[in-house]
Amino acid sequence: MTHEPAAMPGRAAPGLDGGSGAGEDLREVMRTARSIRRFTDAPVDDGILRRCLEAATWAPSGGNQQPWRFVVLRSPEARAAIAEGARGALEVTQHVYRLERPAPDDRSSRARSARAVFELHDGAATVPAAVLFAVRHQRGATPLLQGASVYPAMQNFLLAARIERLGTVITGWHVAGEAGLRAAVGVPDEWMLAALVVVGWPRGRHGPVRRKPVEEVAALDRWDQSL
Amino acid sequence: MTHEPAAMPGRAAPGLDGGSGAGEDLREVMRTARSIRRFTDAPVDDGILRRCLEAATWAPSGGNQQPWRFVVLRSPEARAAIAEGARGALEVTQHVYRLERPAPDDRSSRARSARAVFELHDGAATVPAAVLFAVRHQRGATPLLQGASVYPAMQNFLLAARIERLGTVITGWHVAGEAGLRAAVGVPDEWMLAALVVVGWPRGRHGPVRRKPVEEVAALDRWDQSL
Repeated sequence: MTHEPAAMPGRAAPGLDGGSGAGEDLREVMRTARSIRRFTDAPVDDGILRRCLEAATWAPSGGNQQPWRFVVLRSPEARAAIAEGARGALEVTQHVYRLERPAPDDRSSRARSARAVFELHDGAATVPAAVLFAVRHQRGATPLLQGASVYPAMQNFLLAARIERLGTVITGWHVAGEAGLRAAVGVPDEWMLAALVVVGWPRGRHGPVRRKPVEEVAALDRWDQSL
Repeated sequence: MTHEPAAMPGRAAPGLDGGSGAGEDLREVMRTARSIRRFTDAPVDDGILRRCLEAATWAPSGGNQQPWRFVVLRSPEARAAIAEGARGALEVTQHVYRLERPAPDDRSSRARSARAVFELHDGAATVPAAVLFAVRHQRGATPLLQGASVYPAMQNFLLAARIERLGTVITGWHVAGEAGLRAAVGVPDEWMLAALVVVGWPRGRHGPVRRKPVEEVAALDRWDQSL
């Protein structure tokens, strides 16, 4: 698969004239788009979701084919499938990360983090909103490469949500809940489920992501040569 | 695979206090991060690439494992492998998109677009810079899901480059050129090549992406139900 455009007519290009100030704001958005797992009961307006999904459409895709579909989930049928997926995902998470329900009086950061994970999964049926990201099979693309035609859109969505001060978390609930989700939504066979993102107004604050420094993950020419 | 964090200590969260102005600037960045295929001869400074790659590290990944490595390619060995990949990719592109070298006097937008594609591929060995995005195999993740742990980082990189006014284009050159790239860079077996992004200072301007309207690709609850 190649990322090539169809013919694209020349158009006046708006400059990004904000200078470094605007650039720093945007970097701040990226740097603080931390996963949010606890939400208020406030509903998420469709207009805001549409704005975030519009930003998703601005992402690149193989051959600019835009082989994506974004389904906002709120119906009882969809919620039941989401809850089913969350139950399965929690089992896997508990196993892989040896995660246990913390004691009520444990105030350690690990316990608080674990509690947020359990709270998110236990309340899966009543999350404010969820968005299913699907990608259509493209001829000649490996499954990994198919991801290049949907996860950039998902990332734009996450950043656009962060601009709106919405909280988001990527889940793997569409894996354990795949059959139920496909049935509830009516997903055609040639489409793959790529992600299920939970969205809501944060309880608590946005904050900096925690990552390895770039020096540890970037290289120049050779795998182990520092950039 | 789940996207779950390890314990994350509470930290003061910087607000995004720019209000809607900053948000609009960021949306403008996303809306104008169009692929750029023609570059000036000016070199791309490592410091700028490092800033863009730092933004890449802020992306989410499954279990926050950050199973990514970003390799900036400039050596003669890497350039030879890139050129080999570009030759193979161009053959596929010509076949799939029925792309032919336009006549020199054809000034149509389709011809100009095609010319940029040929110019990019023909000059693959001398692009200003290229970045290879690799992802380590994660136990339990399908190949599609592995993409969720590298393409969001690639998208952050593209947006960070756009902030710096750099031009970028995602290529599939790592597919046809895989063996040569693996040998030139020394990529370990358990790592997969996810993308090769070409980077440089644009000849011509950044401009709005061309996409289907969000109404065509977003749905509510049911596959064909408008949001």
